[in-house]
Amino acid sequence: MLELLSEHACFGGVQRFYKTDSAAVKLPMRFSVYLPPGFEGQRLPVLFYLAGLTCTEETFMTKAGAQRVAAEQGLILVAPDTSPRGAAVPGETDSWDFGAGAGFYVDATEEPWARHYRMYSHILELRELVLAELPADPARVGIFGHSMGGHGALMLALRNPDLFRSVSAFAPIAAPMRCPWGHKAFGGYLGADRAAWREYDATELMARHQTAPFPAGILIDQGLADKFLAEQLYPDAFEEACRAAGQPLELRRHAGYDHGYYFIQTFVEDHLRFHRRQLG
Amino acid sequence: MLELLSEHACFGGVQRFYKTDSAAVKLPMRFSVYLPPGFEGQRLPVLFYLAGLTCTEETFMTKAGAQRVAAEQGLILVAPDTSPRGAAVPGETDSWDFGAGAGFYVDATEEPWARHYRMYSHILELRELVLAELPADPARVGIFGHSMGGHGALMLALRNPDLFRSVSAFAPIAAPMRCPWGHKAFGGYLGADRAAWREYDATELMARHQTAPFPAGILIDQGLADKFLAEQLYPDAFEEACRAAGQPLELRRHAGYDHGYYFIQTFVEDHLRFHRRQLG
Repeated sequence: MLELLSEHACFGGVQRFYKTDSAAVKLPMRFSVYLPPGFEGQRLPVLFYLAGLTCTEETFMTKAGAQRVAAEQGLILVAPDTSPRGAAVPGETDSWDFGAGAGFYVDATEEPWARHYRMYSHILELRELVLAELPADPARVGIFGHSMGGHGALMLALRNPDLFRSVSAFAPIAAPMRCPWGHKAFGGYLGADRAAWREYDATELMARHQTAPFPAGILIDQGLADKFLAEQLYPDAFEEACRAAGQPLELRRHAGYDHGYYFIQTFVEDHLRFHRRQLG
Repeated sequence: MLELLSEHACFGGVQRFYKTDSAAVKLPMRFSVYLPPGFEGQRLPVLFYLAGLTCTEETFMTKAGAQRVAAEQGLILVAPDTSPRGAAVPGETDSWDFGAGAGFYVDATEEPWARHYRMYSHILELRELVLAELPADPARVGIFGHSMGGHGALMLALRNPDLFRSVSAFAPIAAPMRCPWGHKAFGGYLGADRAAWREYDATELMARHQTAPFPAGILIDQGLADKFLAEQLYPDAFEEACRAAGQPLELRRHAGYDHGYYFIQTFVEDHLRFHRRQLG
């Protein structure tokens, strides 16, 4: 099931890169795992990180500086890739914000994407695989992500609160139906039917709730010097939906911070501690 | 003199990328700087990081996780590029361990490299530039590096102990005259005269000393699962030269760790604290 591609000692634990034959995507898929010191024979909390446009399973592990905190907190980290690779769909690599590196964590229904571009199912499949093959506790699984991956984390958690017990995000695409990235991705992968889009929009999903799906709270960090904030991200819309649902949300707005990993590395410790507290 | 290419908030300070017209290299050269919170109007200690083969001025700042510690410790970090770029020397990009990305921190004397491949002088020029243009304290400058850059840091510090008051390294090429990387680089850039090579070999330079050039000590971290250790690095030779010179050396051998940035990020905090203590 799992092929270990490489392994590196890191903060007393181990950084691994794996390949697996994905049933959801029908292609080999890569992902990365950080296991903290003393993981053998344990059942540890596990935190999935979904990355943004153009990223791979490597990006978070090389750029975020999270392993130090995961080692201290006894957390397993898992980072999937952001799309199928080598699906050979015509035009797949023409855009940086659609196709390869831009799966948007949806199950495509439109041709020619429907066969392989099934990242929603892939994340759920990967959760099962990690729980079966690694020393992870099925009752203590959280999810977070950045930008497109922040959208993915919020959306997957809201659709599956029994599977993901804690959720946070960095600069998420919080209302994809309202922004150009979302229009392009949802239109391309899901077609024109906006009812299908709604199943993948965190703000729309939150708006259905009368009570808080995550009563212990959701954490979002947003830089105010983020060049994508005004046109693409819409954290205010998600905040308003949370308020209406009675969902506690800590939306922290940070003057001067932009959309990149210098922003993420600054606040990643807060996110890991947030999940560790909620997962117990 | 300095062109600011980009700027990113990071841990309350600022990550910058600069370009400068290098007199030493006779080409534009890039470098990166991290300035900790509250740097304005100060004279802060500054720590140069020299990167390894194939790296750029970006590698350390994206992968090492050092800014968190630099912010806490009030340290400026500076990371140069690893070679001239765009020198248009025939064959410059044919090898990953010679030419572009592999300047070895020497001033080449052999053609066709002698005009541009002058990274030794570039590091000294960059030190002057940083002291002139940034809020750095000329009396508190340290240097460290990794692999080829560990060689560069040890060698530059040993030749200029008045300019670099503290020195440490991760997995340095500690005796380049004894290893294939060193033979290729020194032979190519400096020619056949081994007397010229000796001026760039940390173990040879240390062997000239009767008393410790760095009486407060030198720190080296070396992973024991490093695939380059046996053939390329020779930390034992440097350790023996330190012993003969009475130079205190903490050479820490870490079981399981390899040559990459997962190793570096694990121990980078220790290095920054080491330099901060020595620089005061």
